[in-house]
Amino acid sequence: MKVDVAVKDGLVVLGQQARRAGIGIRNGRISAIVDDSADLEARDEVIDAGGLVVFPGAIDPHCHFWDPGFPERENWYTGTSSAAAGGITTVIEMPLSDPPTVDGASFRIKQERARAQAVTDFALWGGIVPASLNGLDGRLAEMDRLGAVAYKAFMCWSAVEYPPVDDGVLIATLEALAARGRMLALHAENDAIIKYNEQLQHAAGKRDPQAYLASRPEIAEYEAIGRALTLAAHTSTPLYIVHMTLAAGAELIAAAKARGQRVWAETCPQYLLLDTSALDRRGPYAKCAPPIRSRANVERLWPAVLGGTIDTIGSDHAPFPAEQKDPGYTDIWEAHNGLVGIETMVPLILSEGVNRRGMSLPRAAALLSTNAARVFDLYPRKGVIQVGADADLMLADLQHEWTVEGARFLSHNKWSPYDGMRLTGKIQRAIVRGRTVYAGSAVQVQPGYGEQVLPLRADVTATNTRAPRP
Amino acid sequence: MKVDVAVKDGLVVLGQQARRAGIGIRNGRISAIVDDSADLEARDEVIDAGGLVVFPGAIDPHCHFWDPGFPERENWYTGTSSAAAGGITTVIEMPLSDPPTVDGASFRIKQERARAQAVTDFALWGGIVPASLNGLDGRLAEMDRLGAVAYKAFMCWSAVEYPPVDDGVLIATLEALAARGRMLALHAENDAIIKYNEQLQHAAGKRDPQAYLASRPEIAEYEAIGRALTLAAHTSTPLYIVHMTLAAGAELIAAAKARGQRVWAETCPQYLLLDTSALDRRGPYAKCAPPIRSRANVERLWPAVLGGTIDTIGSDHAPFPAEQKDPGYTDIWEAHNGLVGIETMVPLILSEGVNRRGMSLPRAAALLSTNAARVFDLYPRKGVIQVGADADLMLADLQHEWTVEGARFLSHNKWSPYDGMRLTGKIQRAIVRGRTVYAGSAVQVQPGYGEQVLPLRADVTATNTRAPRP
Amino acid sequence: MKVDVAVKDGLVVLGQQARRAGIGIRNGRISAIVDDSADLEARDEVIDAGGLVVFPGAIDPHCHFWDPGFPERENWYTGTSSAAAGGITTVIEMPLSDPPTVDGASFRIKQERARAQAVTDFALWGGIVPASLNGLDGRLAEMDRLGAVAYKAFMCWSAVEYPPVDDGVLIATLEALAARGRMLALHAENDAIIKYNEQLQHAAGKRDPQAYLASRPEIAEYEAIGRALTLAAHTSTPLYIVHMTLAAGAELIAAAKARGQRVWAETCPQYLLLDTSALDRRGPYAKCAPPIRSRANVERLWPAVLGGTIDTIGSDHAPFPAEQKDPGYTDIWEAHNGLVGIETMVPLILSEGVNRRGMSLPRAAALLSTNAARVFDLYPRKGVIQVGADADLMLADLQHEWTVEGARFLSHNKWSPYDGMRLTGKIQRAIVRGRTVYAGSAVQVQPGYGEQVLPLRADVTATNTRAPRP
Amino acid sequence: MKVDVAVKDGLVVLGQQARRAGIGIRNGRISAIVDDSADLEARDEVIDAGGLVVFPGAIDPHCHFWDPGFPERENWYTGTSSAAAGGITTVIEMPLSDPPTVDGASFRIKQERARAQAVTDFALWGGIVPASLNGLDGRLAEMDRLGAVAYKAFMCWSAVEYPPVDDGVLIATLEALAARGRMLALHAENDAIIKYNEQLQHAAGKRDPQAYLASRPEIAEYEAIGRALTLAAHTSTPLYIVHMTLAAGAELIAAAKARGQRVWAETCPQYLLLDTSALDRRGPYAKCAPPIRSRANVERLWPAVLGGTIDTIGSDHAPFPAEQKDPGYTDIWEAHNGLVGIETMVPLILSEGVNRRGMSLPRAAALLSTNAARVFDLYPRKGVIQVGADADLMLADLQHEWTVEGARFLSHNKWSPYDGMRLTGKIQRAIVRGRTVYAGSAVQVQPGYGEQVLPLRADVTATNTRAPRP
Repeated sequence: MKVDVAVKDGLVVLGQQARRAGIGIRNGRISAIVDDSADLEARDEVIDAGGLVVFPGAIDPHCHFWDPGFPERENWYTGTSSAAAGGITTVIEMPLSDPPTVDGASFRIKQERARAQAVTDFALWGGIVPASLNGLDGRLAEMDRLGAVAYKAFMCWSAVEYPPVDDGVLIATLEALAARGRMLALHAENDAIIKYNEQLQHAAGKRDPQAYLASRPEIAEYEAIGRALTLAAHTSTPLYIVHMTLAAGAELIAAAKARGQRVWAETCPQYLLLDTSALDRRGPYAKCAPPIRSRANVERLWPAVLGGTIDTIGSDHAPFPAEQKDPGYTDIWEAHNGLVGIETMVPLILSEGVNRRGMSLPRAAALLSTNAARVFDLYPRKGVIQVGADADLMLADLQHEWTVEGARFLSHNKWSPYDGMRLTGKIQRAIVRGRTVYAGSAVQVQPGYGEQVLPLRADVTATNTRAPRP
Repeated sequence: MKVDVAVKDGLVVLGQQARRAGIGIRNGRISAIVDDSADLEARDEVIDAGGLVVFPGAIDPHCHFWDPGFPERENWYTGTSSAAAGGITTVIEMPLSDPPTVDGASFRIKQERARAQAVTDFALWGGIVPASLNGLDGRLAEMDRLGAVAYKAFMCWSAVEYPPVDDGVLIATLEALAARGRMLALHAENDAIIKYNEQLQHAAGKRDPQAYLASRPEIAEYEAIGRALTLAAHTSTPLYIVHMTLAAGAELIAAAKARGQRVWAETCPQYLLLDTSALDRRGPYAKCAPPIRSRANVERLWPAVLGGTIDTIGSDHAPFPAEQKDPGYTDIWEAHNGLVGIETMVPLILSEGVNRRGMSLPRAAALLSTNAARVFDLYPRKGVIQVGADADLMLADLQHEWTVEGARFLSHNKWSPYDGMRLTGKIQRAIVRGRTVYAGSAVQVQPGYGEQVLPLRADVTATNTRAPRP
Repeated sequence: MKVDVAVKDGLVVLGQQARRAGIGIRNGRISAIVDDSADLEARDEVIDAGGLVVFPGAIDPHCHFWDPGFPERENWYTGTSSAAAGGITTVIEMPLSDPPTVDGASFRIKQERARAQAVTDFALWGGIVPASLNGLDGRLAEMDRLGAVAYKAFMCWSAVEYPPVDDGVLIATLEALAARGRMLALHAENDAIIKYNEQLQHAAGKRDPQAYLASRPEIAEYEAIGRALTLAAHTSTPLYIVHMTLAAGAELIAAAKARGQRVWAETCPQYLLLDTSALDRRGPYAKCAPPIRSRANVERLWPAVLGGTIDTIGSDHAPFPAEQKDPGYTDIWEAHNGLVGIETMVPLILSEGVNRRGMSLPRAAALLSTNAARVFDLYPRKGVIQVGADADLMLADLQHEWTVEGARFLSHNKWSPYDGMRLTGKIQRAIVRGRTVYAGSAVQVQPGYGEQVLPLRADVTATNTRAPRP
Repeated sequence: MKVDVAVKDGLVVLGQQARRAGIGIRNGRISAIVDDSADLEARDEVIDAGGLVVFPGAIDPHCHFWDPGFPERENWYTGTSSAAAGGITTVIEMPLSDPPTVDGASFRIKQERARAQAVTDFALWGGIVPASLNGLDGRLAEMDRLGAVAYKAFMCWSAVEYPPVDDGVLIATLEALAARGRMLALHAENDAIIKYNEQLQHAAGKRDPQAYLASRPEIAEYEAIGRALTLAAHTSTPLYIVHMTLAAGAELIAAAKARGQRVWAETCPQYLLLDTSALDRRGPYAKCAPPIRSRANVERLWPAVLGGTIDTIGSDHAPFPAEQKDPGYTDIWEAHNGLVGIETMVPLILSEGVNRRGMSLPRAAALLSTNAARVFDLYPRKGVIQVGADADLMLADLQHEWTVEGARFLSHNKWSPYDGMRLTGKIQRAIVRGRTVYAGSAVQVQPGYGEQVLPLRADVTATNTRAPRP
């Protein structure tokens, strides 16, 4: 049969199995999945995937491009280029830009930047800050209309331009979201416990990386997760815990799921591959929030990833240039919190999860793509290799050994907390709506190729930015 | 593209969605799934599924054909014909024949009968009776080699030729199965409680249908489920509870699953559509074991079906001719226990579950096909519409209203406990390995078209009965 | 036998029973319990308890006398007089005076006031406020040495002179207490949720009593109880939840107890006898914190009181004069939070618990006396009728019907939220260390008769204020 | 004051404390408890308890005297003499005599034997066997009237004259008892599992003590406890699990208690002091049912004893003479199941529990006396040192070191599974209703001094055998 593009002879992850198959693409969508790739006759391009695993393109539910607002850190072109190089075909970007994405106006500003620059598809988080209470429902209505997939708030201080909500604002927010059927994502750490511990460290004159760890103990996150579950259950609001780092936290979430609460949990590669020793080795370049945890916790967190309590992997790509990190070598408090990570997210999970810890290919696809598509209501347009779905694919060579070198990243930031780490498993190609956006170590499309993906809920009335299909 | 058979323009259940697609079939397997059915050029047959839902062919994990042994009841030809008319493309037949299927020799006898007569594909249960203890591991090894998908035992008396195991034999059986990595299915009712209550009824001279209900109270099943879970957990043996009728039992099973126990539960349409009033209306023709339960229980069991605790639907097709039922009109104890049901299993779930209680099409496919394929290790050859899978499909018209008439059944038995019930949703066609086995109210293949499906475990060394593929 | 004082022929609550017995007292302690009261020959006084129930004197673990600091509200003489009139023989007074009782110096000031004025025995709470962190362990050591029975902090704002601790201070406090083996009591309400709701009410211009209720929803207390349990479990600190009002909170506490956490819960008569309608009827005179709850909650809280989850009854006597209450009639926010209640605590429980809801006499003794003695380490000196124990007794007439009249209270405050309520069960006499301190509606001892009771822990090195016994 | 008997200067266990006190006794009851023993003037006898701990006399809820029926094993005189020597002042004797105590006639026969021979007070269990179903309610009514404290049945075979009940009979029994408000005690082991394992051992020709252990695995008891809890919950019948041996069983029971089920558990010294190695050392003389368990289980069972899940200690004194034990040296199956134990029960708990594992004196009193009195409705006549209670006391020297020598037992059987074990803590005196029944290594009263104790339930209409009090 005639198609535009044919991806031939890959080991394709189809539902609960992986099997050799061919994928035919027309008008950017998967139009055929065939047993025998020879049946596909491609008008435009034949991609030979022999020997590679073909996953649904990864979805990163958690990244910061700081654009608009902080051009020294990242922007939509460098950010999505780096994503594509890591097999990610859709990013869901966080509202911590300047202005913060907390209403229709700021949302539109970001939409424009993204449309102009993105090389992957993208969706956008809406933001909630204390000031959002002023006209909350109107703000939500605007952002809903513009396609916000869900909303994000902090329980502790992060950036000055994005203050945390206290429990009063939090309940009001949860109630407003419940009324609209929307989900809230929370950065769950207890602000007062962190502040108290920071003061202890400051008072003791501590400025080394371990002092930072001491300022954000596990109990700060554990307590906040418990509180978030309690309040979201009270208001019956769907809840998404971002960058959950704790094995004990996974138990809280598993128990809530068993009670029928609608809650999902995300973790990040840094909480699965690094441990507190990274702070000693890399100092400010391993500083993020929540902080890297102990090796014991890492080992007990993996079963929750393999076994189903953890739903999604996010990169929490929150990149800062050396000028905003290096001061931390002498005073850890002077370094910004956040890691470069969007380009390594998928390879790290393939290397450590699939190749070293026995994660199945379907489970990897679920964690890296399908679950996020379902949680954020992008399924079945995204997140699955199925006829009719967008032809978003990542082709991975699971045998390829390589060494992480931040210097080669397509991100604006040329460093990685994993610099020098040997991995097995590498992304060879990323395809978005049938077009190869990344291959041969380079981006293959122009800025602006990426489109916004709208959630598939009935009441999104915004016009999809995508051109009509013939 | 050229295929042997094309199923065009159906609303195809693909993973977690249903969408319009075409299915191309070559050599009995799905060789293409395409967005635009026009791409398919069929050498042999084009099936227009316009307006129909295309499900993976249903798998009935629980049916009795009594063949060899009881030709007056059913046989492999009538049984699988009736199955096909109900959308079932693979039956997993129970070991209660004569001789009972409890060793290699009896297994081979049944294999031959089935191969000669079946019009659908089939798999076979192995059986465990007390006498199995004599050389248990050897018996299991033989049946394993011949493709037994799992093993079945009773905790209470059913047929004289198939005695129940006591807890001593049960533990020994569980241990032997655990050592081989095999699953045990149990008919879970407490024998002593039933016997005691039967005696009470007999002593009181009761012979009416309600006396039968009184003899098998809910506690008899509830206790047995609890005990089965305890003993299987003790030996770490995978456990499958057949025809689970109780809402309270579903809670026991949900709790066991939450603890990580490998346990699956099946229920049957009769426990979801009938209630105790059926005994008054139909007498012996509504007598089965466990018995039909109260309306309150039915309503509380549905959430477990819709919500995920129940894994599979089985027909428990256990047909008896009128001569073995009618004596029950004057003395309920004189009627055999069992219902005709294989032809109505799927339509009942479509009508009551999908059309009346909001079951999604993917959930229906999971309950009726995919889950059974996974539990019995037939996946991904069976249970899914995916390239490479067997082209086993059922085409259903979800809008079709009709009335159950046992007199029209393809079963040897021309009655139904649902006679006269109005249903919405009907099977139009069943396809096994690309060939239509049922359409137009008639079987379309010769006896013997059906093949044995072997579990996909590594150590099944038996030759698959299926002809080699070119 | 010769004794100083004999209490004859009462129905004495002895362990798990009540039986007719005589009590002989020498040197202020129980020196004999006899079957036949005729055996007792009293040198000083014979008290005929015929027809009365003799309980161990009640212990009020939660009262505010505001002395020093607020003479217009209450003082140690009026407060303990009112206590004695209510059958209370030991009060444990809260640290919310001015200066607050948060270190050695303020503790000594209060000790002197109490020693000079009290007519019942007394123990003292130590206080924790945010400023306590400055030299926390030293403060605790001082208060420990002076006999603080336990420590109290607030999770929300109450009085300006006694600010709440945030979670950082709370954890530091819990850790310091755990190191010393001491217990923390918490007023558990979520400050931010209350503040947010207050603002909503203020913004809406609401000033009526129901607005006050709306500002302190159940979730504010429920969340705080959960958080307190989480943090105290983290630090392994014994925890005491004061004035717990919620049936759902009792479930959290029961689950924590079942997990082995050392936690105790107190509730108050106002949460067991009043419901939200009281706010409509009495306005500011029914305003307290946490607020009075719904009738539905009251009915579900009683089983926790009768069944064992609730350990103690406290009065939370927090009296304010009319000048500090009356402004609430026009603007509820202008009324102070707190109720007059020490004189009615025991009669209310006897009337509603024993006479109307079937509470046994031993259970009443446990809730009103024995449990508090054990929790605060006063047992077996206080809290039990046993030879060797202090002869602290209350004599109650369980048949006596009467009407609450605040105007007759011995408290400085002549009002009651129960004014006009008919009760069955009245205190006739209170005996402290063998001496009748209250009888015939009047105090029978001089100010200063009361002594401080020290906890019986090994490391209390302070000299007991009590005169040596001959 | 004048009393008949004075017990002076003991360290008396009074409720939740132990303190030096004097006890005055009149007419067999405690008539005074005094601080200063000098106040007691005794007409008949002064007992100087200086240096000894005075406990409420122990109650053995589980002993077999086999009388009538098996004079070669034990009788009421030797049995109660041995009990008294072990500090036991009330025995509750099991129905496994010949005839078994399963109806009014057999109950009366046993009553007469006991009245004629007992030197301690006694209560009697009623028995349930399958044949009891014939006229069950009438049998229960008779035994109730005669003072049966509760009823006992077996879930597995024990003695041929006392067959086990199957689950049908069990439910019928539970229902009948629930209707009467009575409690059922169960020997909880799964009969079929034991039989199966016995056959395995027999088939393998095993006759050594470890073969016996292998025949009664932990799962047999664990499953039966779970089943007993399920069925008793179904019928709402109070349940008492005798000789519970398993740490895992204690968890089942703790969970049931937490759910509010009325269930109590007994364990025995043999499951707390011996482990499976005893079978190797003592062969048939360590053979009992359930069998002695592993050391690991013993260590995990102690916390349930210290912490409150286990309610009572029973001796399960089931003595057999050497002729019925010795054949077990060559063939373990030829030895009867049961141990001599009534004389060592209390000393073993005092030595191992109080002196070595930190059990408090009040907890020891609860386990050995008070709880049994409450469970079997003998409280407050028995089980507590309180005025008005029967003057049943045991005086123990907790410092006394000695060696167990069965040859010195007052039992008919002169052996012990603890022969040669060094203990710390010995009984010096046992007092029943004010009279010393054991002291100076000898019984001090005539056969027949012991009286039947009737449960204090309202509907016991039998005349108490005790003479009226003046």
